[in-house]
Amino acid sequence: MTLGALYVGNRTFTVEPRPPVPPGPGEVRIDVAYTGICGTDLHVRHGTMDHRVAVPAVIGHEMAGRVAEVGAGVTDWQVGDAVTVMPLDWCGECPACRAGHQHICHRLTFVGVDSPGSMQGSWTVPAELLVGLPEGLSLRHGALIEPAAVAVHDVRRSRLAAGEHAVVIGAGPVGLLIACVARSVGAQVALVELDPHRRAVAAGLGFTVLDPAATDPAEFVGGWTGMAGAAVVFEVSGSAGGVRTATGLLAVRGRLVVVGIHPTPREVDLHRVFWRELEIVGARVYQRDDFTEAVRLLAAGAVPTEELISEVVPLRHVTEAFDALERGGVVKVLIDCGGDA
Amino acid sequence: MTLGALYVGNRTFTVEPRPPVPPGPGEVRIDVAYTGICGTDLHVRHGTMDHRVAVPAVIGHEMAGRVAEVGAGVTDWQVGDAVTVMPLDWCGECPACRAGHQHICHRLTFVGVDSPGSMQGSWTVPAELLVGLPEGLSLRHGALIEPAAVAVHDVRRSRLAAGEHAVVIGAGPVGLLIACVARSVGAQVALVELDPHRRAVAAGLGFTVLDPAATDPAEFVGGWTGMAGAAVVFEVSGSAGGVRTATGLLAVRGRLVVVGIHPTPREVDLHRVFWRELEIVGARVYQRDDFTEAVRLLAAGAVPTEELISEVVPLRHVTEAFDALERGGVVKVLIDCGGDA
Ligand SMILES: [Zn+2]
Ligand SMILES: [Zn+2]
Ligand SMILES: [Zn+2]
Ligand SMILES: [Zn+2]
Repeated sequence: MTLGALYVGNRTFTVEPRPPVPPGPGEVRIDVAYTGICGTDLHVRHGTMDHRVAVPAVIGHEMAGRVAEVGAGVTDWQVGDAVTVMPLDWCGECPACRAGHQHICHRLTFVGVDSPGSMQGSWTVPAELLVGLPEGLSLRHGALIEPAAVAVHDVRRSRLAAGEHAVVIGAGPVGLLIACVARSVGAQVALVELDPHRRAVAAGLGFTVLDPAATDPAEFVGGWTGMAGAAVVFEVSGSAGGVRTATGLLAVRGRLVVVGIHPTPREVDLHRVFWRELEIVGARVYQRDDFTEAVRLLAAGAVPTEELISEVVPLRHVTEAFDALERGGVVKVLIDCGGDA
Repeated sequence: MTLGALYVGNRTFTVEPRPPVPPGPGEVRIDVAYTGICGTDLHVRHGTMDHRVAVPAVIGHEMAGRVAEVGAGVTDWQVGDAVTVMPLDWCGECPACRAGHQHICHRLTFVGVDSPGSMQGSWTVPAELLVGLPEGLSLRHGALIEPAAVAVHDVRRSRLAAGEHAVVIGAGPVGLLIACVARSVGAQVALVELDPHRRAVAAGLGFTVLDPAATDPAEFVGGWTGMAGAAVVFEVSGSAGGVRTATGLLAVRGRLVVVGIHPTPREVDLHRVFWRELEIVGARVYQRDDFTEAVRLLAAGAVPTEELISEVVPLRHVTEAFDALERGGVVKVLIDCGGDA
């Protein structure tokens, strides 16, 4: 019997013993070592995703663990394999799937939100969602592969190249990972962040980071790029101001990647989009190649991992873990689900 | 002595005899046959471009004619050659020029606005702006090469491919040319237009055209594309409503090309940009390849020309020509500059 954290609505989690679910045909049961808490999980706790989450629900989708049991017909995986999960389940039949964009399936199931997640000691999932982890990568760090794959996808969508200048607006966990991946491709990277703690973390990772209340980002970028402007801006803040800043920073033919969630339409300077032939590019989750690349980058040490993990909290303290994230001042909080024995 | 139309400010043109300007080294003097009036010229007449136009000014940039005289050092052109002009003059030194995007030069001179244009019988320009016209293409039709090059550029920026569905919002001259070029690459094309006369012209060219007051474009596109959405939308209307409609029509990974001029920032549904991984792409003027391709398309009859020319007006009636365009109900009005003898 292992423990699981159940979201029961009304901002509340309960921790209860949960019997392991034997894997059916094509499924695998995983002993979950660590599960990271992400912004989506915070939204679930705040009730804004109640229409998608059938309570009581185990949530969580940023994880690493080891294969504990394989179902009938599973030949690619063996007990003991270190794995993470790409938490997307698509229909295979809609226009997006047929066009090869399965990760934006019209009927996408996001595992850990629309179906049970990994904030539990034992988790049973379809084997085709598994992504292998190399033995050199600790399971603790493996729990960062999913958010790193988001960052890899965002950078890939931007077509950022070595030597180009990139600005990341918003230095939360996703922004920091994007900055790390952008640096790993050889780009010059600067971040813009209002929060002093987040600025300190970014600076600690060796990045140039601006306080937009003190330094005009457009003026900085002008000097930084010989008046060309930035080749790429990642808008991760989800704010109206972030969008306004972003278009103002871009070079001719620059790309603005929309990573943050904008709940309402935003005013966009379409005249500048026209005048400089800018591109505004949406980037959502990831594809399998992004996971493969994220594994490669983390295993190679090209993306720092330990520096991004602020706390590791036992599963029975899941509520405190969420509280810590909501208070701010931390980057990633991992839940120790008990499977890293 | 030939005639020239001079914009003197206050919505007024005068027509006066103008002595031909002998071509200097590297220059060519052209006997102008026809000059089309475009939206930019209307803006000049309305005074909204007075900051760029040094009155009295000869404007105009959509033209065809024949080489009348070549300056010292010009070896590529001979008297009698049928030509049009690519009316861009760039600095060659700014970051955009150095990056190979000369057509978006930070200090771009648009010939015919920022410098003298072609609404005159004799026009002297740098030889490197010339684009040759094949003998099979009449000079009357050659005056449409410049706006057709805009359309070619817009379609190229969209990466529209054969078999894809494209929607053009706004069926003025640029919208119609975009629709024609889109059809020439093998795409399925529909237009959205509020004005009944413009709808009739589009229908006369064989296009599906929607009245958005009568038919919901999103509903139409859903049925038309098997619920996939359009691969490409060209926003040519320059209106807030056009932008709102455009994002709602696009398929996963669809491209919205910003062609129209949006004088103020527009509300854009960035959540949908994120959710469907849309791209919003600015497209401004053209590059030399676009002119070459426009010449090829018009010479091959792949883009209708005669159908787009509503009137040809003698130069001395330039004011009436502008008045006709402002009244609406016409597509292209050409000014006969006297050089098609
Ligand atoms: Zn996540
Ligand atoms: Zn699907
Ligand atoms: Zn024009
Ligand atoms: Zn330049």
